[in-house]
Amino acid sequence: MNSFDFDVNSDKAHEECGVFGIYRVNDELDCVSIAQDALYGLQHRGQESAGIAVNKDGEFICVKDLGKVSAVFSDKNLSKLPNGKIVLGHVRYTPFANLDRASSQPLVIRYIKGSLAISHNGSITNYTQIRNELESGGAIFQSNSNAELIAYVIATQRINSSSIEEAVIKSAEKIEGAYSLILSSPNKLIALRDPHGFRPLCLGKLLDSYVVTSESCALDSIGAKFLRDIKPGEMLVIDDKGLHSQIIKTAEKTSFCMFEYVYIARPDSVINGVSVHLARKKAGEILYKEHPVEADIVCGVPDSGLDAAQGFSKASGIPYAIGFVKNKYIGRQISGRHQDKKERLLKTKLNALKANVEGKRVVIIDDSIIRGNTSKHIVKLLRDAGAVQVHMRISSPPFRHPCYFGTDIKSQDELIANRMTADEICRYIGADSLGYLSLDGLSKIADNAEIGFCDGCFSGNYCAPIPQEEFVDKYSQKLINIE
Amino acid sequence: MNSFDFDVNSDKAHEECGVFGIYRVNDELDCVSIAQDALYGLQHRGQESAGIAVNKDGEFICVKDLGKVSAVFSDKNLSKLPNGKIVLGHVRYTPFANLDRASSQPLVIRYIKGSLAISHNGSITNYTQIRNELESGGAIFQSNSNAELIAYVIATQRINSSSIEEAVIKSAEKIEGAYSLILSSPNKLIALRDPHGFRPLCLGKLLDSYVVTSESCALDSIGAKFLRDIKPGEMLVIDDKGLHSQIIKTAEKTSFCMFEYVYIARPDSVINGVSVHLARKKAGEILYKEHPVEADIVCGVPDSGLDAAQGFSKASGIPYAIGFVKNKYIGRQISGRHQDKKERLLKTKLNALKANVEGKRVVIIDDSIIRGNTSKHIVKLLRDAGAVQVHMRISSPPFRHPCYFGTDIKSQDELIANRMTADEICRYIGADSLGYLSLDGLSKIADNAEIGFCDGCFSGNYCAPIPQEEFVDKYSQKLINIE
Amino acid sequence: MNSFDFDVNSDKAHEECGVFGIYRVNDELDCVSIAQDALYGLQHRGQESAGIAVNKDGEFICVKDLGKVSAVFSDKNLSKLPNGKIVLGHVRYTPFANLDRASSQPLVIRYIKGSLAISHNGSITNYTQIRNELESGGAIFQSNSNAELIAYVIATQRINSSSIEEAVIKSAEKIEGAYSLILSSPNKLIALRDPHGFRPLCLGKLLDSYVVTSESCALDSIGAKFLRDIKPGEMLVIDDKGLHSQIIKTAEKTSFCMFEYVYIARPDSVINGVSVHLARKKAGEILYKEHPVEADIVCGVPDSGLDAAQGFSKASGIPYAIGFVKNKYIGRQISGRHQDKKERLLKTKLNALKANVEGKRVVIIDDSIIRGNTSKHIVKLLRDAGAVQVHMRISSPPFRHPCYFGTDIKSQDELIANRMTADEICRYIGADSLGYLSLDGLSKIADNAEIGFCDGCFSGNYCAPIPQEEFVDKYSQKLINIE
Amino acid sequence: MNSFDFDVNSDKAHEECGVFGIYRVNDELDCVSIAQDALYGLQHRGQESAGIAVNKDGEFICVKDLGKVSAVFSDKNLSKLPNGKIVLGHVRYTPFANLDRASSQPLVIRYIKGSLAISHNGSITNYTQIRNELESGGAIFQSNSNAELIAYVIATQRINSSSIEEAVIKSAEKIEGAYSLILSSPNKLIALRDPHGFRPLCLGKLLDSYVVTSESCALDSIGAKFLRDIKPGEMLVIDDKGLHSQIIKTAEKTSFCMFEYVYIARPDSVINGVSVHLARKKAGEILYKEHPVEADIVCGVPDSGLDAAQGFSKASGIPYAIGFVKNKYIGRQISGRHQDKKERLLKTKLNALKANVEGKRVVIIDDSIIRGNTSKHIVKLLRDAGAVQVHMRISSPPFRHPCYFGTDIKSQDELIANRMTADEICRYIGADSLGYLSLDGLSKIADNAEIGFCDGCFSGNYCAPIPQEEFVDKYSQKLINIE
Repeated sequence: MNSFDFDVNSDKAHEECGVFGIYRVNDELDCVSIAQDALYGLQHRGQESAGIAVNKDGEFICVKDLGKVSAVFSDKNLSKLPNGKIVLGHVRYTPFANLDRASSQPLVIRYIKGSLAISHNGSITNYTQIRNELESGGAIFQSNSNAELIAYVIATQRINSSSIEEAVIKSAEKIEGAYSLILSSPNKLIALRDPHGFRPLCLGKLLDSYVVTSESCALDSIGAKFLRDIKPGEMLVIDDKGLHSQIIKTAEKTSFCMFEYVYIARPDSVINGVSVHLARKKAGEILYKEHPVEADIVCGVPDSGLDAAQGFSKASGIPYAIGFVKNKYIGRQISGRHQDKKERLLKTKLNALKANVEGKRVVIIDDSIIRGNTSKHIVKLLRDAGAVQVHMRISSPPFRHPCYFGTDIKSQDELIANRMTADEICRYIGADSLGYLSLDGLSKIADNAEIGFCDGCFSGNYCAPIPQEEFVDKYSQKLINIE
Repeated sequence: MNSFDFDVNSDKAHEECGVFGIYRVNDELDCVSIAQDALYGLQHRGQESAGIAVNKDGEFICVKDLGKVSAVFSDKNLSKLPNGKIVLGHVRYTPFANLDRASSQPLVIRYIKGSLAISHNGSITNYTQIRNELESGGAIFQSNSNAELIAYVIATQRINSSSIEEAVIKSAEKIEGAYSLILSSPNKLIALRDPHGFRPLCLGKLLDSYVVTSESCALDSIGAKFLRDIKPGEMLVIDDKGLHSQIIKTAEKTSFCMFEYVYIARPDSVINGVSVHLARKKAGEILYKEHPVEADIVCGVPDSGLDAAQGFSKASGIPYAIGFVKNKYIGRQISGRHQDKKERLLKTKLNALKANVEGKRVVIIDDSIIRGNTSKHIVKLLRDAGAVQVHMRISSPPFRHPCYFGTDIKSQDELIANRMTADEICRYIGADSLGYLSLDGLSKIADNAEIGFCDGCFSGNYCAPIPQEEFVDKYSQKLINIE
Repeated sequence: MNSFDFDVNSDKAHEECGVFGIYRVNDELDCVSIAQDALYGLQHRGQESAGIAVNKDGEFICVKDLGKVSAVFSDKNLSKLPNGKIVLGHVRYTPFANLDRASSQPLVIRYIKGSLAISHNGSITNYTQIRNELESGGAIFQSNSNAELIAYVIATQRINSSSIEEAVIKSAEKIEGAYSLILSSPNKLIALRDPHGFRPLCLGKLLDSYVVTSESCALDSIGAKFLRDIKPGEMLVIDDKGLHSQIIKTAEKTSFCMFEYVYIARPDSVINGVSVHLARKKAGEILYKEHPVEADIVCGVPDSGLDAAQGFSKASGIPYAIGFVKNKYIGRQISGRHQDKKERLLKTKLNALKANVEGKRVVIIDDSIIRGNTSKHIVKLLRDAGAVQVHMRISSPPFRHPCYFGTDIKSQDELIANRMTADEICRYIGADSLGYLSLDGLSKIADNAEIGFCDGCFSGNYCAPIPQEEFVDKYSQKLINIE
Repeated sequence: MNSFDFDVNSDKAHEECGVFGIYRVNDELDCVSIAQDALYGLQHRGQESAGIAVNKDGEFICVKDLGKVSAVFSDKNLSKLPNGKIVLGHVRYTPFANLDRASSQPLVIRYIKGSLAISHNGSITNYTQIRNELESGGAIFQSNSNAELIAYVIATQRINSSSIEEAVIKSAEKIEGAYSLILSSPNKLIALRDPHGFRPLCLGKLLDSYVVTSESCALDSIGAKFLRDIKPGEMLVIDDKGLHSQIIKTAEKTSFCMFEYVYIARPDSVINGVSVHLARKKAGEILYKEHPVEADIVCGVPDSGLDAAQGFSKASGIPYAIGFVKNKYIGRQISGRHQDKKERLLKTKLNALKANVEGKRVVIIDDSIIRGNTSKHIVKLLRDAGAVQVHMRISSPPFRHPCYFGTDIKSQDELIANRMTADEICRYIGADSLGYLSLDGLSKIADNAEIGFCDGCFSGNYCAPIPQEEFVDKYSQKLINIE
C-alpha cells in the first residue's frame, strides 16, 4: 500500500486520525508551536483536516479547518492563539463522501460544567445505538463524528457524577469499540485508550511537561522523551498535582491493529515495545521464507514497501536496489485537463529506475493490494523499464474483510482478494509470481509486543463485538458543510 | 449612522442578521443562484458570515463561512450544491469578540426526526434560562448562537409532538424575545415571527414558488413579487400542499424595532406597509419642524443621512446638495502600516465637495450619534472645505439604552448621550447647532404602519421582558473557532 | 454611463489610468502608505491593475499586479517596500482582451544611466511608427503598453543627451498624442503633460513635499493641498533643489477631454479650474433648457447621473428624488451558475425606489448611452415600479466616434447612435421621450475652464492628428501573460 | 546535500533551471497538460517560478508566476491556454535576493519579426559586456535575467539575418558560458546547447511529436521515448518539415557539470549516456576504497545520499540500512512563532531511526558539505539515537570555488572547506571520521560519459573563460517586482 494511491485513485485503505495533547508545566514552552510540530509528525495519520485547541484559563480557542497542517495553520491564525496550559491537536482522515468541516477536531463544546475539548482516534462500534438513545432524549447532532457522540455521552454522565473523571469512567462503560482519546476539561488533561488497545497512544515528557500522542515519532518531532505506551483500558489524568493513572476497564483480550505495523504507523515509531521499522523488516524476512524466489534484485514500492524489501533482501541474500524514483513534488491537487490524465499522473509520480532494473529478475515488495490497479501499474512500469521477470511479494495477507475499529477499508466487493485467488491476481497484475505473507507469518512480525493483536481485516476474526448490521447504514446520509 | 463607521472604528450600533428561504415549485428555478442573489440583497444586514443550505431529498448540503457573500461563495463551492426543493440562506452580523465560525448559519442539525436547517434573526431574551435547563439534561453546545439553542428546543419538543409544526408551536411557548425564523424540515419550509414582531419578515412569490425573507428589497433582487409581511406571532408552513398560516402566539402589544426604519433596513424596502425611504424622509421633515435653522444648503452624510436630508430640504425649502463624495472602493480590509492610518483613512473614504459647501451655511443630516468621533470628523471635513456654518441634525433621538432584541448597541458608557447634554455634544463635535429628532417626532415617521413600535434604545421603555441581570454575563465567555 | 455597466456587460466606454508621484522632503511621511491612499482616490480611473514603485537610493522596488488596490496590496507585500525618497503609483484600466500582467505599471526599467520608473495615462498616436523604428534597431517588447514604448524612446534619446531632462524633452518631440506622465530617475521626479492637455495632471503639496497626480481628489485623499494644474506642454522637475518648471512643447490648440467632465473624473475633483460636480450640474441645467418636459420628479442613474439630475431639477423646478437604490456589495466577481444570471444581476445591483416613482412622471438622467441595453433596462425598472411616464435625458451628446486619446470607446458599430436616430433609440429603450445634450450645450458646461476642449468622440473633430489607418491593427495581436 | 537544507537555512548550493519544449504533430496530444507533467518532472531543478507558454498561430499566451508548479498552475488559468502547436515550459531556481517576478520564464517578447518565446538554463559569462553594449545602443531591461539578454541579442542579430536560424547562429557567436536553450519562433521550435555542454539537454519523441527537455526523467514523466542528448554546440530546429540538426559552434573541450551527477540531476535520468543513479552509486564505491572504515551499518542522508550509500555498502560489505525517516509533509512554508523554531524544525523534518542505529557504528553518506551546520546536526541526531560511532563520508570533493556556469554556490567565505581542513571539519561536525571523495575519484564516477567534465567548483580549474572581475558586481543592484 503505497501512499501515492491516496493521491491518485483512492485505491487503498486509509489510515485514521492522529491525536496530541500537552499539559504545560514549564512556562517557557510555546505549546501552540509544539502542537503544530507534533501534528506535522502525525500528518501521515490524516490529511483531511487539522486543528489545535488551546485551553486558556478554562476556556478554549481553536483553529481548525479542512486541509493539511501546512495549509490550515498560518502565522496569522496561530498568533491569535494564547499559550495555554493545556493544548490539544488533531489530524484527521475522512473518506471523501464525508468531507465535512463540522467534523474537524479538536471538538470544543460547552456543557453543564463548562468547556470541554476532545481529540479522538478510533471507531465506536455501538455508535448507532447510543445516538438513537440520545436523540430520543432530544439531542441534536451537527456531524456524524464519533467525537461529538463521545462529548454527549460524557456530558450526560457528568450530570450524575461528582467529577469529570467519574463521568469519563462511566462513559467508557457505555461506548464500545476503538478509541484513543485525549480530553481537556478546564483544569485537566485526560487520556484514555480503549481496553482492547486497538489504536496506539503513548506518553512522553518535554522538560517537566507531560505529552500524550498517537505515535512516538511525534514525540521525537518535538524533542520529547518517550516514557511508555498508555495501557489498554488505562485512563491518565494530568493536572496541577501531576500524573494519575488508573485502569478503568479491561477486555478479555487486547488486540492492537496489525495494520498499524504493516502500513499506518510511521516506521520510526515504537509501539507496544516494537519498532515499526523492524516489524516491517521482519515481515520481509518471513515473506522470503514463505515465498522464496531466485532473482537479481529486490526493490520496494516507495515508501511503504521499502522496509520489508530490506528484510527480504537480508533473508534471501538478493541485493537490495532502488527500483523507483518518486517525484516528491506531486500532490493530490493535480486534477488535469483531460481524461487521460490519471494514467499520465502515475508516470509523473513514480519512475522506474531503468539503470537498476533493466535486464534483471526483480522482486518487488508492497505492503498490500486493494483493487489491484496500482500493482498492475507497478508491474508494467518495471517491465517497460526492461525487467525480465517481476515477482510481486506482499508483506501482509490478502485483505478480505471490513475493519470496524478505525481503519477505512473499501467495501468487500472492491477488494480484489474477495473476487480472485492469488493465482488470478498474479495474472491480473501481470506478475511472474505473487506471494502474500501468511496469517501465521503476520502473527510473528511483532511477536515481542506487549499486547495482543487484531488481524480481523485479514482473517475475519474480530476481537470485539462489531456493529449490528441493521444499524450500519442509518447514518450514511451525511450532513455536509462544504468548504 | 453612516456605514463607513463600521469599517473604521466600529463607532456605531450594528445591524443584525438577514434570513432567506425558498420552496421551489417551478423546476426551472435555480434556487442556489437565487439564494445567492437574495443574500446580496440582504448583505447590509450582516457582513460577518454568509451561508446557503440546500435541502436535497430531506438531507442538507451547506456552504457557509465567515466573510461577505462575495467572499464566501465561489463558482466552485456553489457548483457542489444541488438544486434542492428547499433552500435557506443567511447573512450574519457578529460583534468582533464573538467572531466564531461555528455560529455561521444556516445551522444544519440532525435530531430524532431527521435533519433540520435554521436561519435566525433576533435575540432570545430567556436564552440563559433555557440553556441552563438544557445543559442540566446533558446537552452540549458548540456555539453561543441563538440558532443552536432554538434547534435544541425544537428537538426536545419534537419528542412529544406529533409533527414538526406542533414542536415549533411548543417551542414558541418557551422562547421569548425577538425572532424571525426560517426552518426547513425534510419536507417543509416553516417561517415564524415572534408575537411582538420585533424584526421584519415578509412573504413573496417567484413564479409559483413561495419565498420568505427579512426585507422586501431581497424579493426585488430576485425578481419576486411581494405578497405581504408575516404577521407577529404567525407561523407559515409551506409544503407540497401549498401555504398554510396560523397565528400561534400573541403579545399584548406589537413592537417593531424603530431603528430598522431609522438605519438598519434598506431604503427601498417596504416594512409593515411603510416605505423605509419615506419614513426617513418624513423624519427629516419633522426634524426641520422641531429644529428649524437658516442655511444655504442641506446635505446628508452618505449613505445613511441622504433620505432624511431630502425631507429636511423639502420641509425647509433649503436646497438639497451633495456634500460629500464617498470612495466606493474603500473596504474594511485596509489596515495600513502606521498609527496615523486611521485619520487618513477617513479622508480617503469621504471627501467634502468644496464646490458645494465653500462659503455656505450647511445643514448636515445623519441618522444617529454613538460616540461622537465620526460626527466630529464630519463637521471638520465641512469646515476644512469652507463651510461658514455647520448645523448638525440627527434623524433619531439620542441613543441611551441597550437593545435586548437584536440590535447590537455599544455599552451605555460608550454612548455619548449618556455622558453629555445635547449642548455639550454640539460643542464636542464642533457644530454651530445640533438638533435631535424627539421621541414624539420619531413616533410619527411611520405612523401608518400596521403594527406598533419599540423605541427602547431611545426611551428605555421596553415592550417585552428583558433578560434578568444575573444571567447576562454567564455566556460572555466565548467558544472561538478562529478562521 | 453608470458604473455598474462595467461589472455587467462592458456596455460602456471605459475610463483610463490614474497616476501618482511624491517626492519626499519630510522624513516623517510614510510615502508607501500615502501612495496606497492616493491610489484609492484614483481607483475610479482604473481597476484592472495597481502598483507602487519605491525609489530607494536610486534603485526601485515595486509591488504591482492585476486587480484592484484592495486586492493587490497587502500588509505583507507593502511591508517589504522601504520608505523611499520618490514613490510612484498607478492604477490601470485595460480592455479585457488585453489583460496582460506585463502591462501593469509603474514600469521599472534599467537602461544606460541606471534605473527609471514610469507611470503613464494617455495614448500615443504614433505608437506604431515609433515601435517599428525601434524594432528595426533590434528592440524587443514585452508588452504593448505605451509606457514601455516611452521608456524606450527616453533610453534612446538619453544616449545623446546630457541629462534626463534633455532626454525627456527630446522624447516629447518624438511622441504624439495624449500623455500625462510621471517619471522617476534615480534622483528626480519628473512630471509631463502633453501640449494638448488631453488628460488631467495636477500638483499638490503635503507638508513640504511635492505631489503630482491625475486628479485633485487624490490630493484630498492624502490630506495634501492643491497647488495648480500642470500646464499643457509643461515639464516639472522635482529634486533636492526644489521644483523647476518649463514649457517644453506647445500645440496650436489645447484640448482637454470633455468626457473627463462628463463621466471619467470624480465629481469632487477640480480640473483646469472647474469643479467636475458643477460642470455636471450645469450640464443638467442646459439639458433642461434644451429638452424641457413636464414631470413629477427628476432622478439620476446612480452614480453617474446624480450630479446632472440636480442641475436639471434646479433649472426645471421639478423635485429631485432618489429613483434607485444601489446595492453596494455587488462586485464584478459575480459570475453566476446559469445563463439567466446576467438579467438577474441587474435586478440585484439596482432597485427602483417604488415609494418615489410609483404613479409618477419621471425624468431620469444618465450621462451617456452606448449600446442601449442598460438604458432599456433602467426604463423597464422604472415602469415595473409604477412610473407612468419615463423621460430619459442624457447629459452629453450622442457617442459616435472613436477616441484616440486615451478613452476606450466601443467600436463604431456597437455605438447605438451610429445605427439609430434619437427617436429610434427612444423607442428602442422604451422611453416616452429622449433628449441628448447638444454639442453647443456641452461646450458650455465648463466654459470657464483654463484650457480648450476635445469633443472628438461626439463631434468627430479631433484636435490632434489621429493614427494612420494602416498601422492601427498591427499590434492588435496581444502578448498575454495570464494571472 | 540533502534537499531539506533548502527549506531550512539555505545552507547549500542550489540547482538551476529546467526547460521543456514540444512541437506537436499529433492532434490528440494536449500539450499544455503534457508541459505541466514535464515540469513536475523537472521541479527538482527549480522551485521559485514556473511557466508555460503556448504558441497559438504564431502568437503566445503564457501562464507563469513565482511558486512551485503545483501553486502556479490551476485548472482555471490552464484552461485559458489553447492547445498550441509549440509549447514551452520552465521551472526556475532564483537566489532569494533576486526573487523577481519579471524574471519568470518562458520569456515572451515581440521584436521585428513577430513573437519569440525563450526558456533558458545556464549562465552567460559575458553578460555584462553584452548588456553594456546593448544599453549603449538604447536598450532597456526589465530584469537581470539571462533570457532577456539572449532575446535582445537574437533580436539584434535578426536584423541582418535572413532567418531566425541564422540569427541564433550569430547570437551563439556572441554569447559565452553555459546555456541550454529552447526557443519558439512563430513556426519553429529551436533547441541549442552551448559548445561546452555545461548543462543537460535531451531529445525525445511522444508519438510522432518531438520533445526537448533538460533531463530524461521529464520524458519518462510524459511517457515520451528518449532519443538522444543534444550535442554540445548543436542547434536543433523542428518545424513542419521535421527535425534538422547542425553543429553551430565547437569548443576545445567539452565540460559537463560534474555537480549535475553528484547532486542536481534526478537519479533516474540518463545524461550523456550515464545513469545518474549509477554514477552516484559508483561514487559510493570509490569513496569506500578511498576512505575505508569498519562499521555495522551504512546509511544515506535522505534523499541525496541514498544512492552513494548503496555503492558504499556494496563495496564494503557493510549492510545498508535506513538511518533516517523523513517527514514528507514539511515544506518551506513553516515559519514558526519563535526563535527556537529552526532547531525544532530540523527535528520535525528528519528523525533518526533508533531501531537501526542504536548501539551501532554508523557510516553516514551525504553528497556535500557547505557550511557544515547540517552535517553537524545529522551527526547529533545519530548520536542522540544511540549510534556509538559516526563516520561521515562525502560523495564529492570539498567545495571551494564559485561556479560561473549555472550552479549557485555560496560565496567562498561561507564554504567551510575554505576555512578548515578535513580534520577540523570532522571535529566541527562531531564525527568520528570524515572522508571526501578525491578529485581523481570524482573523475571516474561517470568515466564512460560521452563528453568531458567541469569540476571547477571543486578544483578551481574552469573549462571556459570566467567573467572579468570588474564587471561582476555591476548588476548586483536588482530590480525587484515583489509578488
